[in-house]
Amino acid sequence: MTLENARTALDNLQKTATAYHHALGLLFYDGATAAPRGTAANRARTTAVLTEELYRLNTRPETVALLEELNARRDELTHRERREVELLIKGVRKMQRIPLEEYVAFRRLGMEANAVWRQAKADNDFAAFAPYLQKRFEMSRRIAGYVAPEMDPYDYWLDDNEEGIDRALCDSFFDTVQQRIVPLLHRVMEKPQLPNDVIRGRFPAAQQALLSPKLMAILRLDPDHVGLATTEHPFTTSLGTHFDERITTHYYEEDYSYSMFSIIHEGGHALYNTGSDDALAGTVLDGGVSMCVHESQSRFYENYLGRSRAFCEYLFPTLQEIFSDHLKGRTAEEFYKAVNRAEPTLIRTQADELTYCLHILVRYELEKRAMAGELAVEDMPAEWNRLYKEYLGIDVPDDRRGILQDCHWADGYLGYFPSYALGNAYGAQFLRKMRQTVDVDGCLRRGDLGPINQWNREHIWRHGHLYRPAELFRNATGEGFDPTVYTDYLERKFTALYEL
Amino acid sequence: MTLENARTALDNLQKTATAYHHALGLLFYDGATAAPRGTAANRARTTAVLTEELYRLNTRPETVALLEELNARRDELTHRERREVELLIKGVRKMQRIPLEEYVAFRRLGMEANAVWRQAKADNDFAAFAPYLQKRFEMSRRIAGYVAPEMDPYDYWLDDNEEGIDRALCDSFFDTVQQRIVPLLHRVMEKPQLPNDVIRGRFPAAQQALLSPKLMAILRLDPDHVGLATTEHPFTTSLGTHFDERITTHYYEEDYSYSMFSIIHEGGHALYNTGSDDALAGTVLDGGVSMCVHESQSRFYENYLGRSRAFCEYLFPTLQEIFSDHLKGRTAEEFYKAVNRAEPTLIRTQADELTYCLHILVRYELEKRAMAGELAVEDMPAEWNRLYKEYLGIDVPDDRRGILQDCHWADGYLGYFPSYALGNAYGAQFLRKMRQTVDVDGCLRRGDLGPINQWNREHIWRHGHLYRPAELFRNATGEGFDPTVYTDYLERKFTALYEL
Repeated sequence: MTLENARTALDNLQKTATAYHHALGLLFYDGATAAPRGTAANRARTTAVLTEELYRLNTRPETVALLEELNARRDELTHRERREVELLIKGVRKMQRIPLEEYVAFRRLGMEANAVWRQAKADNDFAAFAPYLQKRFEMSRRIAGYVAPEMDPYDYWLDDNEEGIDRALCDSFFDTVQQRIVPLLHRVMEKPQLPNDVIRGRFPAAQQALLSPKLMAILRLDPDHVGLATTEHPFTTSLGTHFDERITTHYYEEDYSYSMFSIIHEGGHALYNTGSDDALAGTVLDGGVSMCVHESQSRFYENYLGRSRAFCEYLFPTLQEIFSDHLKGRTAEEFYKAVNRAEPTLIRTQADELTYCLHILVRYELEKRAMAGELAVEDMPAEWNRLYKEYLGIDVPDDRRGILQDCHWADGYLGYFPSYALGNAYGAQFLRKMRQTVDVDGCLRRGDLGPINQWNREHIWRHGHLYRPAELFRNATGEGFDPTVYTDYLERKFTALYEL
Repeated sequence: MTLENARTALDNLQKTATAYHHALGLLFYDGATAAPRGTAANRARTTAVLTEELYRLNTRPETVALLEELNARRDELTHRERREVELLIKGVRKMQRIPLEEYVAFRRLGMEANAVWRQAKADNDFAAFAPYLQKRFEMSRRIAGYVAPEMDPYDYWLDDNEEGIDRALCDSFFDTVQQRIVPLLHRVMEKPQLPNDVIRGRFPAAQQALLSPKLMAILRLDPDHVGLATTEHPFTTSLGTHFDERITTHYYEEDYSYSMFSIIHEGGHALYNTGSDDALAGTVLDGGVSMCVHESQSRFYENYLGRSRAFCEYLFPTLQEIFSDHLKGRTAEEFYKAVNRAEPTLIRTQADELTYCLHILVRYELEKRAMAGELAVEDMPAEWNRLYKEYLGIDVPDDRRGILQDCHWADGYLGYFPSYALGNAYGAQFLRKMRQTVDVDGCLRRGDLGPINQWNREHIWRHGHLYRPAELFRNATGEGFDPTVYTDYLERKFTALYEL
């Protein structure tokens, strides 16, 4: 095969795979937004068939031969092509090692387990979910064993979510988090609590929905390419390429800030995806490079920007227009304090900026020990509750608000939770670097996110998967990962807020 | 291959094809409902790839060999299996005769032409759309030539939409329509017009949206399996199987009856699809057998039921609750007359029950003559306007409200329009037969559609594609097609309404 032919075949392979990913993504998106509630089984069947078709495409002899040939001739390829081949061949070798039935069963378990989990959560019945969680750990260990028998299975899944991450790095990171944040939280809890009545009341969904497009415009999301829908648990997804991006939110009538920060968070994901160089569309290099970097962007917009005093000052008049009765005579400073109120709570997705990583720490410890066989599934709820008491100082009243609260383990995302916490920490270093050249607070006070987006686009977004996460991080910040930048930030912010 | 193996392979083939149809249907649905406006090209690329994959599945040697073998052994098959093989082999032979590039180009033209048509309609610029319409006719003639060189190309497309329909049948049907409806309309126009202020005013979409789920419940659509979304031009689609059905509507603030009848119309389609025998799901026999029978159901619910005096009487108190200011002191009889007001109008989708088929007649004549090469594309707007004057007695002020109003030709639906009119006429015979055993007016007056749905399910819905349309029609009605049942119905109804 000539190199030109091989290049064309590589393009076609990626375009075909892109179409399958588009369809699979759309099936998921539809299920989480518009689909009638009795249609999950129908969607699961289609998802299984298309997953199998994609598996066949990726593992058929022509595909493998093409990738092996290109890999052998990697010196003749451009940097971009080499990276495409590297990622594709990694995926193919992984798929080749997993038997087809196991691969399809893994995807199918996610769908089945999600339905069981949903019911178990509603019924506060961990025992109903336990067999699926058991199967999830077993299957995950088995798959790690097929693909990387030389690796620890939990390290395999950590690396699967974030190239280059392992238990050693996570252990050291979470040690810092625990040592710095737990005492800080204790000091905060000794102080009078910040009032949050300025964000709480009765706000009909239709009223909150007036805010959403304004937020999307402030973030500078392109309305031609980024859609908004409502769902139970907000998420973001690219459909096929970064030219079609969907964010979602959920309106809680008692607190308008939930949907507001959902949109800013998911908007951060969408900015990252849609910021890919257009030339990467239709290749494996399109979109965000990893979960950590993705969360670094979503939580950057949500917390470092969205929960800053400067942004709160800019946004408050808009909020006063929409929630005029409630916010009459209130101040931006009250709003700033309300959205930064820190306190131990039961639910991760509603946690404040200070306690958030402690929720993740609990999950990290549990899944690490369960994967190692050191913690039995039936003992997980008690251990969950013990750790919430130890780190956050609160009693978990039931599993619904405890171990059953998240969908991740049901859906198959093991080794994923650490990304949320690491992403937070990455963001602190991006912010410190950005401040060297961008007047971040000035931009926020004017509501002009242009220069901030421009920095992120230049250093992070446009590169897609062109660089490994750690490489991208070093190129952007000029330094290695240092979690104390993050804990220092938290200490400064909450010392000032609570006058510690 | 043993018969058992062949049966399993037949099942698998249909399940795989079902998954592709699910994905393709969902891409269409997404584009028409939730998708951001700049994402069409991205969706078109994915649609083209999946269409090509489906084409390959259907035409690969194993598929053809399987179907040919089963066809050769048709005497050993059940009625159901024979019908599956018959329909599949018809489709495969069709695909085999159309070169792949032409097949994909045909699908792609639909997407491109739709975007051009949309802009041309907005700009009232037929010349911008003309080259695409020209290409549409040429491509359609070419495809008919590949598949059925022995047939007249327009007959081919009529039969493609409705097995067994040809120009002779349509000519005779439309002759009856023209001879009976045109004079009836003239007599109506000499009478004082029925007032329609009871349905016209200012009705915010959010208020109208309160009516939609109530209508869906009255129709007895299963909320677990039938979803509702908003779109520009209402339509219904099954996603994969009849277990996931989507209807759509459009809220016009100045007239609540538009969305109301959209939902009843699309609800009729959805009832038909979801009424398929569950055992047919995942096969080619699932869902409605043809466009005519489909329209016979949608327009049955919309007109024969929805616009009946009995149903108007039942529904009116519900409308009074929702639109309380507007309907205070008004009567069901006023509402009944308003929704049956007949008058020549420019727009097909807003046409009343009496004039509707005349709109179709214009389109039938134009496409028939254009396909035969007897009418040039550039002459079509003038001919459109001439026929509207002749049949409906009105002047068409511009192409936007004339030949550019419908998306069908852009989307590739040639030979499709007659289905709407034939469906109307089929419905009249179904109704006459149903009345022999069901107290239709009594059911409607009580708002109990159970017995009516039951009759349709028993005689029409559950059979899916098990019988050819004409066979299904004869089994259900016990007679052949007779358009005078329809024209008699119209004459009776409008003679009474307008006291002719």
